[in-house]
Amino acid sequence: MIVLVLGAGQLAQMMALASKPLNIEVRAYDVGSERVIDPLSLNVNYGDLTENIKIADVITAEFEHINHDVLKMCEQSGKLFPSSQAIKTGGDRRLEKTLLEQVGVANAKYKIVANKTDFDAAIESLTLPLIMKSALAGYDGKGQWRLKSKSESEAIWQDIQQFIEGDTSGQPQAIVIEQMVPFDREVSMVGVRSQNGQTLAYPLTENHHNNGVLSISLANNQHQHQQLQHQATQAFDKIANKLNYVGVLAIEFFQVGETLLVNEIAPRVHNSGHWTQQGADTCQFENHIRAVCQLPLGSTELVRPSAMINILGTDVIPNSILSIPSMAIHWYGKSKRSGRKMGHINVCGKNKAELISRLNQLSEILPIADFPDVSDYVKSL
Amino acid sequence: MIVLVLGAGQLAQMMALASKPLNIEVRAYDVGSERVIDPLSLNVNYGDLTENIKIADVITAEFEHINHDVLKMCEQSGKLFPSSQAIKTGGDRRLEKTLLEQVGVANAKYKIVANKTDFDAAIESLTLPLIMKSALAGYDGKGQWRLKSKSESEAIWQDIQQFIEGDTSGQPQAIVIEQMVPFDREVSMVGVRSQNGQTLAYPLTENHHNNGVLSISLANNQHQHQQLQHQATQAFDKIANKLNYVGVLAIEFFQVGETLLVNEIAPRVHNSGHWTQQGADTCQFENHIRAVCQLPLGSTELVRPSAMINILGTDVIPNSILSIPSMAIHWYGKSKRSGRKMGHINVCGKNKAELISRLNQLSEILPIADFPDVSDYVKSL
Repeated sequence: MIVLVLGAGQLAQMMALASKPLNIEVRAYDVGSERVIDPLSLNVNYGDLTENIKIADVITAEFEHINHDVLKMCEQSGKLFPSSQAIKTGGDRRLEKTLLEQVGVANAKYKIVANKTDFDAAIESLTLPLIMKSALAGYDGKGQWRLKSKSESEAIWQDIQQFIEGDTSGQPQAIVIEQMVPFDREVSMVGVRSQNGQTLAYPLTENHHNNGVLSISLANNQHQHQQLQHQATQAFDKIANKLNYVGVLAIEFFQVGETLLVNEIAPRVHNSGHWTQQGADTCQFENHIRAVCQLPLGSTELVRPSAMINILGTDVIPNSILSIPSMAIHWYGKSKRSGRKMGHINVCGKNKAELISRLNQLSEILPIADFPDVSDYVKSL
Repeated sequence: MIVLVLGAGQLAQMMALASKPLNIEVRAYDVGSERVIDPLSLNVNYGDLTENIKIADVITAEFEHINHDVLKMCEQSGKLFPSSQAIKTGGDRRLEKTLLEQVGVANAKYKIVANKTDFDAAIESLTLPLIMKSALAGYDGKGQWRLKSKSESEAIWQDIQQFIEGDTSGQPQAIVIEQMVPFDREVSMVGVRSQNGQTLAYPLTENHHNNGVLSISLANNQHQHQQLQHQATQAFDKIANKLNYVGVLAIEFFQVGETLLVNEIAPRVHNSGHWTQQGADTCQFENHIRAVCQLPLGSTELVRPSAMINILGTDVIPNSILSIPSMAIHWYGKSKRSGRKMGHINVCGKNKAELISRLNQLSEILPIADFPDVSDYVKSL
């Protein structure tokens, strides 16, 4: 069986690693070079997209910002899972907000603006501080602006206007202005839905960001926050069912008291689910492949409390961290670039205390220059 | 970092899967075609052995029956781990028996014979029934004979003589005749030794064979049989230290009452350690790579009671087994041949009862024609 993944980054690579034992071959479409490659041996070139759409048994995606013509071509083959509509919804905050309203899932108050009049009106009608995000593309802190006081609005509008004018997607760009949520913490739910509508969710993961980029995810006992787990699962089911979704879908939430507000959804395997490689019964990559290939879903149970630490912008970490038990390093084999996601470290413990003790050992070894926030976060646990 | 593995079967493939996240590239030398290939994407050809010995940072082996000239060439590069002597010892029962005597590790009474006179004398001096094994090559029931009554000895000698004459290894062949051990069960220990002499052992695994081929391995709580675990660990340390071994080494034992007798040693990752992929903190494949690459060894702790079931001679099993939680299928992508190891299934449970319950569900689905002994074994647990 051949699965063609749209996108050839680390997510496609980890899908390929999880698929190999199932006798499923993953090929990855690199949107940059427009070639289909082997995500494990990058020097294998399988030719162009059209040819590989024909060869593939199933087509899926590792990211949501894919050219709509490509999505259309894939959908016409009848092999694309999830649907192009689901992928587009994850890539367009306007569609995402509309979906959340349709299914009645709580999220932050917002306005969509594309011109100065709407921009000014939005600032008047919403309560400051505001977060402004481009409707298309832009993630990990890019294409985002924060407005704390009205005096900054003119300068920010200049910047936004430039951003909109510079957009090359060929689709109408806009800005979603949201009221900033005074959240207690950020959590996410990664779940999977099969072609016959079965859904399974991983335990809620606590996420710690640094400068808008995910730094650490923590997955503890799924029975500890039953009410929150239930709330998130309900949101997951509503969203996944409405999209007639197939595969792994991630939802990021703001937790305010005991309430979860959706921040955004990602129609794909997700960085905050990488811990499942070591900590869950079936990892998110295998479950995504199982779902899109019409295999039975795997259990999403937590096996051990686990954490994931992103390796950003560096390609060297001390090997001595491997002396700590349950330390799994996952490098993506990418060339170094400031802030780039280069790999991640998964850490597990048989209980939360052991996990925290190992995280403490780890944070003492990791260079503070490359992991500036890890030590403080770990100490706060 | 590039690791060249001598042998290009499933063991090299699983080493490659475990190495990829560590940014370690595994290349595999296929002794049949004499080419170096990518064990994950078999269509990549890296050229000939000489060239790849130069390119590799480390050389290791996935099986012990390797041409001695090849071993010599690899050893001369200074990159071979474990040593050629350790690999040869695993591939020659004469060296193996000598080693066991040197380090004082209990094993079955035996005689080495290469001619009819020695053969007759051995039968007289040992107590029947006897098991006769070729000194070189021959495993999984091949190159083995059983003598239950003296009346069969002439016929068996004819057969053995033919086998010795047909040997193409270029080395003097012989037969090791052993007294059959009336064992209670077969167990094995997989362990790892680092270049600085640190050793770590996985919990003792119970092995069930069918027609001389491993069918099921079961790894339960390592603290349950502390005395046996201790005995096996001591044997492991003595053998691994004597060989100045680097990497994963497996020892198969016969358990007679509370005593372990060594059956044979394998200087490599081992079929009875495949459960470690899902059930141990660090799998045997990663630990082997860590050891030969001078990285810190990973914890060998059992995470969950686990079992491994070999898939022999078939390339189809019902997908519905994936509906059972903790079911991991590992296909090797090989073409089907009667009795051939085509893949394995790993099953885990949070405790032994859950594992047995899942094994029971599994054995009800697996076709009896392909898995003739699984149901009976599982019922006996």
